[in-house]
Amino acid sequence: MKKITVIGGGTGTFVVLSGLKKYQLDLSVVVTMMDSGGSTGRLRDQLGILPPGDLRQCLVALSDAPLLWRKLFLYRFEKGDLQGHNFGNIFLAALEKVSDSYDEAIETVSYVLKIKGNVIPVTLNKLHLVAEYENGKKVTGEGLIDENHTEKSRIKTAYLEPRGKANPKAVKSIEDSEYIVIGPGDLYTSIIPVLLVSDVKEAIKKSKTKIIFIMNMMTKSGQTTNYKASDHVKDLVKYLGREPDYILINNGRIASDILLSYERYNEVKVINDLDKNGYQIIEKDLVDVKKVEKNSSDTLYRSILRHDSEKVAEVLINIFK
Amino acid sequence: MKKITVIGGGTGTFVVLSGLKKYQLDLSVVVTMMDSGGSTGRLRDQLGILPPGDLRQCLVALSDAPLLWRKLFLYRFEKGDLQGHNFGNIFLAALEKVSDSYDEAIETVSYVLKIKGNVIPVTLNKLHLVAEYENGKKVTGEGLIDENHTEKSRIKTAYLEPRGKANPKAVKSIEDSEYIVIGPGDLYTSIIPVLLVSDVKEAIKKSKTKIIFIMNMMTKSGQTTNYKASDHVKDLVKYLGREPDYILINNGRIASDILLSYERYNEVKVINDLDKNGYQIIEKDLVDVKKVEKNSSDTLYRSILRHDSEKVAEVLINIFK
Repeated sequence: MKKITVIGGGTGTFVVLSGLKKYQLDLSVVVTMMDSGGSTGRLRDQLGILPPGDLRQCLVALSDAPLLWRKLFLYRFEKGDLQGHNFGNIFLAALEKVSDSYDEAIETVSYVLKIKGNVIPVTLNKLHLVAEYENGKKVTGEGLIDENHTEKSRIKTAYLEPRGKANPKAVKSIEDSEYIVIGPGDLYTSIIPVLLVSDVKEAIKKSKTKIIFIMNMMTKSGQTTNYKASDHVKDLVKYLGREPDYILINNGRIASDILLSYERYNEVKVINDLDKNGYQIIEKDLVDVKKVEKNSSDTLYRSILRHDSEKVAEVLINIFK
Repeated sequence: MKKITVIGGGTGTFVVLSGLKKYQLDLSVVVTMMDSGGSTGRLRDQLGILPPGDLRQCLVALSDAPLLWRKLFLYRFEKGDLQGHNFGNIFLAALEKVSDSYDEAIETVSYVLKIKGNVIPVTLNKLHLVAEYENGKKVTGEGLIDENHTEKSRIKTAYLEPRGKANPKAVKSIEDSEYIVIGPGDLYTSIIPVLLVSDVKEAIKKSKTKIIFIMNMMTKSGQTTNYKASDHVKDLVKYLGREPDYILINNGRIASDILLSYERYNEVKVINDLDKNGYQIIEKDLVDVKKVEKNSSDTLYRSILRHDSEKVAEVLINIFK
C-alpha cells in the first residue's frame, strides 16, 4: 500500500481526507496545532490543553464510524455555558485531561471514531503562530491572524513562539511517505504552521517523498490578498525549503454568484500564472457543485466554495499510480 | 438468569450496581429523571434536554469499558466555560441533540461504555419534583429540595409537575423482574421521584416482584431529619403502595470521626426501630471502610460514608438464590 501523508488541518484538508479515505492507502495526516480562535482558542486558554479544533476535523474526515458519531463530533452547542463549543473539542479536551499521554488520547478517540489511517498532531508542544507584516505590524495567535481580514500589507515572515519540537510520529510519517499532499487551505494559518515546527522541514528535505501542492481556488483577505498562483508557490517554497513536484490547480468554472459573494470580502479567484518550473502543473475541474456540509469547519466566516473530495481524490490517485 | 431491577439514581444506586454487575444477572436500573441541580440543572435549563446526571452515574456503574472511559465520563471541568460540568453530562446532552430518539442516545452510550445490563430512564418527559412541607412551604425542583438543608419541617407530600408518563421500557422491566432493589439513596430526591411517575407504582403493584429496600445509614438534613428506620419505611410505603419484602439495614460500626463530620450538618445515624411486620429484616455490616471514589456523585455536598458495594451485593445475591 502506498504511504501518503497529508499536511494541514482546515476544511481543505477535510475535503482531501474525505476523498482519499475511500481508497486503499496507508494514509496519515499531520495536523497543525496552532489554532487559537473560536471554541478551540477558548478551551486552550481556559484549560491549558492542546488546541483540539483541527484534530477534530481530521478525525471526523477519516472516521468510518456510523453517521451519528460524526454528527456528534461536529455538533456545536447553541446556548448556555457550552455555547459555541463543538462537542468534539470538548471530547478531546476531557480526554487529554484523563489520559496518561496525548498519544493515549488520540488512540482512544481514533478507536471510537474507527479512524481509517493515522491522525498525528504535528507537535505536542503548546505553540503560537506569529505573523510579521511588511508594514512592521506583528500579530500573535493563529486566531487573530486569521481574523485580520482588513490587513493590506503582506506577511513578511511567520514563525512560532516558542519554536517547539515535532512529534516524532509526524517526522516518521513524513520520512516514510511516497507522497505528501499539501493544501488546499489557508496558507498562513493551516499549512505554513505545520512546516514551521522544528524538524518538519528537515524531514521533508531528507526524504525522497514527492510533494503535491493543491492550490486554493480563492485568495484569502488579509492573508493572501491579490495572490496569484505563483505567489502561493513562492511563499510555500520559502517555508518548505524546496519546490513541490506537482501543483494541482482548478480550471473548472466557478459560478458568478459565488464569486460575487467572495468579492464582498475582497477575495478573488486565484489566477493561474504558473510557469512550468521544476514542477508538473495539473489543471482539472475540482469545484464542488454539491451542497457543502455546513458543520465541517469551525471558522466563524464560512466560505461556500469547496474543492470536490471525489474529484481531488481521483487526480491524486492517478498521480500515486 | 434472574431478572433484577434497581430503582434510584444517586451514589447509593452507583454502589448497588457496581456490586451486582460482577454477578451473572439480568440487571436493569430504572433511573430518576428529576435532577435539576448543579451541572445537570444548568444543562437542562439552558439546552432543554433531559437531565443527564443520574443516568451518567448509572452508566458508569454498569460500565465494563476500560478505566479511562469511566474516568472520562466522571471527569469534571474545573475552569472556564465548562467549569463544573461533567464530561458525561455534556456527552449525553450532545447525544440527545443529534440522536433521532432518546432510545438511540442510550443505546449509543451503552455501546461505548460496554454496559452490563440496561440503563432505563424512568420517563422521557421533562418533569419537576415538588415538595410540600408540613409548615405549608412548597419547593419546586429536585436541586432546590436537595439543598434545602436547614428545613425543620417534614415533607408532607411530594409530586411531579406535570405528572408525566413512564417509559414503557421501565414498566416492562419492573413487571418482568423477580426482585426490585430500592435504595440506598436520598429518599425524596432519588427514590420517591421514580415511584411518582405514572404507571410505575401500578406496575409494581401488578407484578409479583419481591421488593428489597436498602436502608440509608444516615439521615439527610432537611429531607429525613431525625428519621428513624420506621419513618423511612412509612414514607416509602406511602409512595410505593405496598410494603417491601426485605429490609436490609446496616449494623456495622460507623467510625466516630465520620459520625462527627455528619453531626455538623445535623445528620445522625438511622436508628433501627423496625418491628417485624410483613417484611424480613436483614441486619449486616454494610459499611465501606475503603477510600471512597470522590467523583461518583455530582451533589455539591459529598458525604464520606458509603455502603460497601461488595458487602451489599453478597447479601442481595443470597436473597436472590
